Amino acid sequence: MSKGLVVVGSVALDSVEANGTVHDDVLGGSASFFSTAASYFAPVKLVAVVGEDMPEQHLSFLGSRGVDLTGLERAKGKTFRWKGRYSSDLASRTTLDTQLNVFADFKPRLPEAWRDGEFLFLGNIHPSLQLDVLTQVHKPRLVAMDTMNFWIEGELAALAKVLEKVDLLVINDEEARLLSKEHNLPRAARAIRAMGPKTVIVKRGESGALLFHEHGVFAAPAYPLEQVIDPTGAGDTFAGGFMGYLARVRDVGPQAVRRAMFYGSVMASFCVEDYSLDRLRSLSEGEIEGRYRAFRDLTHFEDVRL
Amino acid sequence: MSKGLVVVGSVALDSVEANGTVHDDVLGGSASFFSTAASYFAPVKLVAVVGEDMPEQHLSFLGSRGVDLTGLERAKGKTFRWKGRYSSDLASRTTLDTQLNVFADFKPRLPEAWRDGEFLFLGNIHPSLQLDVLTQVHKPRLVAMDTMNFWIEGELAALAKVLEKVDLLVINDEEARLLSKEHNLPRAARAIRAMGPKTVIVKRGESGALLFHEHGVFAAPAYPLEQVIDPTGAGDTFAGGFMGYLARVRDVGPQAVRRAMFYGSVMASFCVEDYSLDRLRSLSEGEIEGRYRAFRDLTHFEDVRL
Repeated sequence: MSKGLVVVGSVALDSVEANGTVHDDVLGGSASFFSTAASYFAPVKLVAVVGEDMPEQHLSFLGSRGVDLTGLERAKGKTFRWKGRYSSDLASRTTLDTQLNVFADFKPRLPEAWRDGEFLFLGNIHPSLQLDVLTQVHKPRLVAMDTMNFWIEGELAALAKVLEKVDLLVINDEEARLLSKEHNLPRAARAIRAMGPKTVIVKRGESGALLFHEHGVFAAPAYPLEQVIDPTGAGDTFAGGFMGYLARVRDVGPQAVRRAMFYGSVMASFCVEDYSLDRLRSLSEGEIEGRYRAFRDLTHFEDVRL
Repeated sequence: MSKGLVVVGSVALDSVEANGTVHDDVLGGSASFFSTAASYFAPVKLVAVVGEDMPEQHLSFLGSRGVDLTGLERAKGKTFRWKGRYSSDLASRTTLDTQLNVFADFKPRLPEAWRDGEFLFLGNIHPSLQLDVLTQVHKPRLVAMDTMNFWIEGELAALAKVLEKVDLLVINDEEARLLSKEHNLPRAARAIRAMGPKTVIVKRGESGALLFHEHGVFAAPAYPLEQVIDPTGAGDTFAGGFMGYLARVRDVGPQAVRRAMFYGSVMASFCVEDYSLDRLRSLSEGEIEGRYRAFRDLTHFEDVRL
């Protein structure tokens, strides 16, 4: 039995404006999307903080997905809040407001029993906190992390220290370019791999995701959906599906990682079909397998030599 | 034996500024890239016009690739010229000068013997000329076409008439959005398919190409190259590899079309590795098959059910 998948990140209340409507105080945060997606594959242990204003229904939803909330701190004050607006084509977004609130003083602490977790995901938080989490774990089989432009621009020294210690970085294309100072993505990935992580996954939104590791390159497409409602959390959902699949099969070999890229893409394709993580609330195994087959059909062809 | 592949389009002299160097009077034009790429798969018959300034070496190169130049008109005056400059990241380009020259009065005429050609590609020329070519052919098995924003914006009525009569449109993402007035690509493709072509291929540069037809959607990746030199002609090269493969196997079924998407991508990946069509001048079968296998490795994984 898996010793589980531990995620450290944010649980937030989001206000999202997309497709002409506003959704206030919906469940958001990197760890919420990650945990929910991963919960379809493996038991998830969540380390995060929320304030007194976090509606109980959001936490009980995570609990209903089997997410272990022992590591969720409930602090005095307000929950981390993010407010954003998407352009009408959903291709870009503007952050209207960010309130760190209880997240400003967050010191992640892993419950003792979680410290021998096999799979660890360090969500997008201050690199010093990511580093601190690494001192708390024993010998995880795979440590993956995310980061963002804010830390790349402002906390590069701390970020470099974390990068040295992790196995895998999941990052979007613009962040990969910023971190590596290379526009070309294969060169950017190569430069980042030289900073520490043996494996780099570059997320490219509707262009899918690229995996760079010692075994070469792998491309997973995004599913060409006719209706996209809200892209918020798609990257974290990808990471959740990816890590959840690996934790489920307890395999980090090159073929498992390729399949994990597809399961990550499958979960991300559901995520964008509704606001917040609503589409991820009650997927059936059949829906997940059906979308997985649709992804297979999207790229598969019968090979015939010329 | 194939009754061949006929292409109507431009043969040009380009001046290209990319990666800090300028290359003047290099062989360019949609039909040059198309023909050269397709020539690796099937005999190509070229209908185009050049002026008196076209260096003989360019034409003899096309001849050396087995391209039949019977339909190439040599007119008084200067050859069609295009001058452009790429941004340092090669992600965008500026057209500095366009001189139609002999192309302004071009009236494509197919040699009598070519009119029963099985495969026809209408390169990016005035839609009225594309329509005129269609009156000259008998019953081709597959007619594909390209177009551009200039005709979409200025000659929509003529373009609509051509679209009604072709089987397949190859178009880039921005043109697909402009033509359909839909930002979402699957919806754009659906709208374009309602205009006539049963099959729509949307080229997305370094994000690969999407195929939309009655059998669903298929995604071919672009190869993540570490070194891109000159993207000029990549789209026409894709079309050449795609149509060349279909003409070679004389099969337009769904599996053949998927493989053709890969061969199109293979040829486009070579195209961008050097200026003009220099990289396409002398590829070996081994190089093409090697790149094809690299593309397979890029997307293939062993399927294991959860």
